Amino acid sequence: MPRERLIVIGGVAAGMSAASRARKRSPAMEIIVLEKGRHVSYGTCGLAYLISGQVARPDDLIVYPAEFFRTKRDIDVRLETEAVEIEPGHKTVHALARGTELLSLGYDKLVLSAGGAPAVEISGADLPGVFTCNDLAGTIRLCQFLEQEKPRRAVIVGSGYIGLEVAEAFRRRGLDVAVLERSGTVLEGVEPEIGERVEAALREQGVRLRKFANVSGIAADARGRAAAVAHDAGSEPAEIVVLSTGIVPRTALARAAGIAIGPTGAIAVDERMLTSAASIYAAGDCAETRHLVTGQPAYFPLGTTANKQGRVAGENAAGGRASFAGIVGTLVTKVFDLEFAKTGLNEVQARAAGFRPRRVTVQSHSRARYLNGKAILLTLVWDQPSGRLLGCQMLGAEGVAKRIDVAAMALHARLHIPEMLHLDLSYAPPFGPVWEAILVAANEAMKQQG
Amino acid sequence: MPRERLIVIGGVAAGMSAASRARKRSPAMEIIVLEKGRHVSYGTCGLAYLISGQVARPDDLIVYPAEFFRTKRDIDVRLETEAVEIEPGHKTVHALARGTELLSLGYDKLVLSAGGAPAVEISGADLPGVFTCNDLAGTIRLCQFLEQEKPRRAVIVGSGYIGLEVAEAFRRRGLDVAVLERSGTVLEGVEPEIGERVEAALREQGVRLRKFANVSGIAADARGRAAAVAHDAGSEPAEIVVLSTGIVPRTALARAAGIAIGPTGAIAVDERMLTSAASIYAAGDCAETRHLVTGQPAYFPLGTTANKQGRVAGENAAGGRASFAGIVGTLVTKVFDLEFAKTGLNEVQARAAGFRPRRVTVQSHSRARYLNGKAILLTLVWDQPSGRLLGCQMLGAEGVAKRIDVAAMALHARLHIPEMLHLDLSYAPPFGPVWEAILVAANEAMKQQG
Repeated sequence: MPRERLIVIGGVAAGMSAASRARKRSPAMEIIVLEKGRHVSYGTCGLAYLISGQVARPDDLIVYPAEFFRTKRDIDVRLETEAVEIEPGHKTVHALARGTELLSLGYDKLVLSAGGAPAVEISGADLPGVFTCNDLAGTIRLCQFLEQEKPRRAVIVGSGYIGLEVAEAFRRRGLDVAVLERSGTVLEGVEPEIGERVEAALREQGVRLRKFANVSGIAADARGRAAAVAHDAGSEPAEIVVLSTGIVPRTALARAAGIAIGPTGAIAVDERMLTSAASIYAAGDCAETRHLVTGQPAYFPLGTTANKQGRVAGENAAGGRASFAGIVGTLVTKVFDLEFAKTGLNEVQARAAGFRPRRVTVQSHSRARYLNGKAILLTLVWDQPSGRLLGCQMLGAEGVAKRIDVAAMALHARLHIPEMLHLDLSYAPPFGPVWEAILVAANEAMKQQG
Repeated sequence: MPRERLIVIGGVAAGMSAASRARKRSPAMEIIVLEKGRHVSYGTCGLAYLISGQVARPDDLIVYPAEFFRTKRDIDVRLETEAVEIEPGHKTVHALARGTELLSLGYDKLVLSAGGAPAVEISGADLPGVFTCNDLAGTIRLCQFLEQEKPRRAVIVGSGYIGLEVAEAFRRRGLDVAVLERSGTVLEGVEPEIGERVEAALREQGVRLRKFANVSGIAADARGRAAAVAHDAGSEPAEIVVLSTGIVPRTALARAAGIAIGPTGAIAVDERMLTSAASIYAAGDCAETRHLVTGQPAYFPLGTTANKQGRVAGENAAGGRASFAGIVGTLVTKVFDLEFAKTGLNEVQARAAGFRPRRVTVQSHSRARYLNGKAILLTLVWDQPSGRLLGCQMLGAEGVAKRIDVAAMALHARLHIPEMLHLDLSYAPPFGPVWEAILVAANEAMKQQG
């Protein structure tokens, strides 16, 4: 009897998690990973630190090299091999190796983990000097450009967390940085009180932020290189441009194979990570997930979710019965000296989801004030009729990132405000205040509930 | 009609929380606080930082001085005034002011927040040079002794979190430090894998730890001052001795007044913080609470709980309907360069409480390894038949204190292991690893559940 074969398309986060988990569950299965790039299993979320120099070498971001998977886990990783067509009817994947060699591989199980692609629908996006910070190869090119061309003026298009991470990295390298943001706020979805503080911090760090700046295109100089970014209100000179206007799921292969796409535009999956096609799973930035607060499908491409989905897909592809219920929308990022974190819905999103939200913002501290505690600003959003917690955002100079997890946990557990008044959270002067911000906020919310 | 009068006995944490909350609820009520010491409203948990010098002045630990409460909150704070008898039948408190003046005060509502006292049943405990680190006045005396007498050899009796905090403070001041521990482990209730690491850290910091050292008494020198601590295995010379063998609830007043004492030896209260006596509430280190994991009464004297109970007692004493459900046993402490945190039950406690516990210990990191993440050791305890989470302990050089809150939250929400596999916890390289320790542990536990 031939070995059952699992093919994994895409080997960054979700794909290698799927392959590894499948191997753990099934020592016998044949596992092939088709990765179009030259690297597998690296920390996508650390790319900005490569730009800043805080991570010295690209290799430092690689969790395991391809060779590790081949020799230690018996996973047949094929680099520079791009899947170009899936035939679900024939259970076959066609792929192109090193741009020339066409392969046709039969599969018993397939995991789609092709990831997401930067949204770059801007004219001039392909000019020299224009980059994204979405994969290792592109980021290495960006770093080489910085070294060789020594650009002094940078424009970042988009002020999401990746845009701001790159802004920080560029400032650390001494570049002049302008950030162009289409909307009226940085960090999409941020509550106004918190967004204002982030914007003030950007200004303090010498970042020129232009809001309501719809980019119309990138202009080239005489040598054909990026020279300026044109927007509604004028033009911003730039020797280097980074596009960080979001991630879109890579779904072309799935669409062509007739696999159902969900309402978010990503591949629809059930709790087993199974797509609409038999024996085909999807995981990571190409797939949808469920938002556990709204109960609706959501697209929330993050490394942690990709890893979890990948594990579940791999487990099930190898005959298991794992499930991934969904996310609550937790995100944390460092913006220069500030930590910003959120989970769940903001007030606007909550209203759009059919809740009747209320919101309270409070301030507490990261630790006892007599041990130099830093301010933490916290916003809590809850549903007025039911009292159910819907979301939380936090901003502060320290201690924010892991504090948000308490709110994330509360969302998973579907807690209501009255259940949150007296949570037995840790306290010691070096680590927190007697009244944690989330407890202060819950008490305030309770008062407003009356 | 005369104003309704609330008397609060004890004005440190619970007492001032009660008085302040009562004032918020009732602008009209007369509120009198009887405090036997010279200070109200200070951070008991910061006392060790006064010894180390990290907190420069005693005043830095005082949240609000008595005068603030008198003028800003119309609370009649009476310092150096010790309640000596309660007559519930006559709704009267008798108190002694400055050791000489006897007062009799009628009350409508009474809050008992007399706190806890250090357990000092050791002969020689009253010798000069012997201290506890339990209140501000005593700690100031200890600091004065350090300044004036310049002791070089210190013995700390008891290796609970206060004992170890004082050990660190003394080492920071360059003292030679020995810690005598009656049992076979530091930090009562710690799981063995974690306890061993803490002990190794203490040794690295030059602390001489003697376990199974039952102290029989403190011997005096010719001048009548503490000179050595005698124990089972010999005698430890000391010019300063700190007793940190635990806290016992101050219940003498309550007992004499016929107020019911609970099975833990502390004052029994219901969710409203009401004692067995009409109109008499208790809160803080003199009162019991309920352990939400076991469902049983517990004595767990900590500042956070005291503040919460105080608020509830104050709210209700002023006519409200607040309730305090209980605790899950969360505690965090700094042991030199390590953070130790726990919540819920350890395996032994869980078995004693009637569960059929299992335990798993894993290691993860405080942040991405390529950004210099530090190891975090985590132990999870769960109930085998039901899968219910029962407890968690963590140890690491950073990022432990607030991570334990996720487990505390899970205990409040009565989560089970299968619900914890894919929690949407925050991730960014500067703040955490892709797989948080608690998720690694939950996955490991799930495997063991089969």
